[in-house]
Amino acid sequence: MSKEDIGITVTKKDDFSEWYTQVVLKAKLADYAPVKGLIVLRPDGYSIWESLRSTFDKKFAKNGIRNGFLPILIPESLLGKEQKHFAGFNPEVFWVTHSGTNEIGDKLALRPTSETLAYTMYAKWIQSWRDLPLKINFWNTALRAEIKATKPFLRTSEFLWQEGHTVHTSQEEAEEEVIKILEIYKNSVEEELAIPVTVGKKSEKEKFVGAVYTTTMESIMPDGKALQMGTSHFLGQNFSKPFEVKFADKDNVEHFAWQTSWGVSWRLIGAMIMVHGDDKGLVLPPKVAPIQVVIVPIYKNDEGKEKVLPKVEEIKNKLELKEIRVHVDNREGLSPGYKFNDWELKGVPLRIEIGPKDIEKESVVIAKRYNCEKTNLNFTDIERIVIILEEIQKEMLKNAQEQSKKNSINISDYSEFKSKIEGGGFLNAPWCGKSKCEEKIKEETGADIRVIPFGSENLNLKCIYCQEQSQSIPIFARGY
Amino acid sequence: MSKEDIGITVTKKDDFSEWYTQVVLKAKLADYAPVKGLIVLRPDGYSIWESLRSTFDKKFAKNGIRNGFLPILIPESLLGKEQKHFAGFNPEVFWVTHSGTNEIGDKLALRPTSETLAYTMYAKWIQSWRDLPLKINFWNTALRAEIKATKPFLRTSEFLWQEGHTVHTSQEEAEEEVIKILEIYKNSVEEELAIPVTVGKKSEKEKFVGAVYTTTMESIMPDGKALQMGTSHFLGQNFSKPFEVKFADKDNVEHFAWQTSWGVSWRLIGAMIMVHGDDKGLVLPPKVAPIQVVIVPIYKNDEGKEKVLPKVEEIKNKLELKEIRVHVDNREGLSPGYKFNDWELKGVPLRIEIGPKDIEKESVVIAKRYNCEKTNLNFTDIERIVIILEEIQKEMLKNAQEQSKKNSINISDYSEFKSKIEGGGFLNAPWCGKSKCEEKIKEETGADIRVIPFGSENLNLKCIYCQEQSQSIPIFARGY
Ligand SMILES: [Zn+2]
Ligand SMILES: [Zn+2]
Repeated sequence: MSKEDIGITVTKKDDFSEWYTQVVLKAKLADYAPVKGLIVLRPDGYSIWESLRSTFDKKFAKNGIRNGFLPILIPESLLGKEQKHFAGFNPEVFWVTHSGTNEIGDKLALRPTSETLAYTMYAKWIQSWRDLPLKINFWNTALRAEIKATKPFLRTSEFLWQEGHTVHTSQEEAEEEVIKILEIYKNSVEEELAIPVTVGKKSEKEKFVGAVYTTTMESIMPDGKALQMGTSHFLGQNFSKPFEVKFADKDNVEHFAWQTSWGVSWRLIGAMIMVHGDDKGLVLPPKVAPIQVVIVPIYKNDEGKEKVLPKVEEIKNKLELKEIRVHVDNREGLSPGYKFNDWELKGVPLRIEIGPKDIEKESVVIAKRYNCEKTNLNFTDIERIVIILEEIQKEMLKNAQEQSKKNSINISDYSEFKSKIEGGGFLNAPWCGKSKCEEKIKEETGADIRVIPFGSENLNLKCIYCQEQSQSIPIFARGY
Repeated sequence: MSKEDIGITVTKKDDFSEWYTQVVLKAKLADYAPVKGLIVLRPDGYSIWESLRSTFDKKFAKNGIRNGFLPILIPESLLGKEQKHFAGFNPEVFWVTHSGTNEIGDKLALRPTSETLAYTMYAKWIQSWRDLPLKINFWNTALRAEIKATKPFLRTSEFLWQEGHTVHTSQEEAEEEVIKILEIYKNSVEEELAIPVTVGKKSEKEKFVGAVYTTTMESIMPDGKALQMGTSHFLGQNFSKPFEVKFADKDNVEHFAWQTSWGVSWRLIGAMIMVHGDDKGLVLPPKVAPIQVVIVPIYKNDEGKEKVLPKVEEIKNKLELKEIRVHVDNREGLSPGYKFNDWELKGVPLRIEIGPKDIEKESVVIAKRYNCEKTNLNFTDIERIVIILEEIQKEMLKNAQEQSKKNSINISDYSEFKSKIEGGGFLNAPWCGKSKCEEKIKEETGADIRVIPFGSENLNLKCIYCQEQSQSIPIFARGY
């Protein structure tokens, strides 16, 4: 394999889509499975998901949410119980019709989402107010047949996600839960993945079918397109009524319960790749990097090796004591330059280079992946790497915030809107609140309302489309 | 609901099968899903799985194994590539034939196991000896249609498991891996679940189709039936040849690789329930218990409450500082007796009772779940609970070992074999090594060779069936 085949052969700027695919494959995060629409996660990709899972699990647990397991097969009869909800998924459902050579009577859907199954169970489990709130999260996969070209983490027919389903005695408590979850999502994505998000509501047109309303967090990608990063739905009693999720209150009167559902998927990993990656490949935020620090020993002969390796071991141990995930690249027969490229491609946040001359100077060279900056660090300061990693994490978020700001434009005029949308980005534009204007804008420009940010209510402006009084200033964008 | 409906209504001895089902359902570990053969895990059940997963993950990681993700859909064409392997699963496979209303050409199997898919990917990923060993584990579910009655954790059409798949440059290294994994399995099950296991090889007849040989760990259940607790297979080159899993060695010559696969499933939870449970319900080993200590405050009036609750809080905090998972049952309107029964049903290893009189005596009552023993513990000794939990864990294993020993009988005569097998248990009986005798014994008594224990080779005895020279002393039993 030539060096060119190993590295990324296009620039992020020139061919964003091809660049993305190359990063995913060449950094060995994922690969295409033998069935169209499906991908396999290799350990470096899956471990990012594990890291996110562990972050969310801790925050969910603090909020009284526990994990459970639901089977993947849902009978057609059940899936159709909440008609509106079902209709949305119908064209994408994979159907199991046979087991062995036997035909199955009530054919079985592969879970596109689990509301119907979870609430069938919840109805059995909930009798009284004592059983509430019931808050269960499920880490699993969902299946929705994709007809468009496969895009790892972004467009696949099976995807890893979590789906949370909570039940409450009051509307107020359920609505509070919706927001609590959205906050957990927002701070996790910003703190762990260093990606800024905008939170707010979806419009009626864009909400989850079956929800009373949907809250969402949205991010802007470097190509100017918006990506939905996670949603938290207030379901009201839309499911509790058909599924009879009822509870006897303290006065022994029966009520239908109030519900929420919410989810994030591995598309968060896709966002991370797009936002932080560069022409050399992947750039990982330290918090989710499987390897945070790679040490490359440099020597030309046995004498050099004997000088360098003990120090490498010492540094490794020091860092491991500080709970840093560190790897020593002691592969024989590969040049330092090859190794540098390799770890840059894989996005390792910090590289330590150490050769005989460094030993003499009692220092190492450290190279930050995100800005490719190289500096020296004295042996005595090695433990400062803990702080350096924290700084990198913060800097990456700051850079992403600046990038995101640059791609965010205030618009008050529809012709300006139409010209600016061609360049991509988040367009903040006043809107009257009517679906008709929203649909027309979509039709004429390809831009959706991604999110109506919290606090963006505004009655003092004019709808960019119909010129009537504005209700809010949503973010319009073309999306993934 | 009457008290009887809440508690277990049969004894373990009188109706083991019904007892088991009641424990699973009433301790709220799991419930039946709306499709025959499928179950749902409630948080108390799933958290035991999470605990096992975390134990195995740590041990796998130490052994250089990382986790990945494989999609659930496998095309028929691929599944059939290793014919022998495929034939074994054929009658149990769920088939996806449609997405939406479109028929799928090459119909898709729901993963019964992932060898074929994993090795298709491995063949792409492995070029040279530098890429080996490749050791990836997958936490997922497998689907095999069950026609017999559903039995939570033991007989379901979808089950949680892990499947590990490793690739090596040499036969020797692969065979070592098989044993390393079996050891991880054995010590995890004994240390975490307090269940003794016997390890060894499966006979040719009982091995995994497609393996060169299968190693296994087996346990004896209280009803005298054997349960396979996990298997680790040496695949040789049986898959590497059809799937072309090849590597260029240091001399640049291409070789077929050597492979292993191995798995444990949630049936480990089923075993735990059967081995430790009693007539009051579930009994959890402390290490996997979601709640290790429950505190039940006892008071009759506000005065008592004011006296008791601050102490309860203090004890709770002390235990949490020691990283004990502790829960305070401060539900109003339920009697202490009701609460005791409730937590006994749920198997919480240790209960602390504390009322106004205990406050005066500066001690609490502690009740161990596994032997129902009640003693006093001084306030000043509260932190001894750490040690008490460790003792409980050890005692539970010891008891299970004794029970297992009682159910293990040495047999040298076939008529004795036939009479003893009726009472269940592990029958150690010399065998000539021929499948014909094994098949006849199975036919006439219903007993399989569960495992040929390591070290049970023995040429000095006579096969209990044909009287020819023995090769080993396998364990025969009727199984789950
Ligand atoms: Zn308008
Ligand atoms: Zn024989």
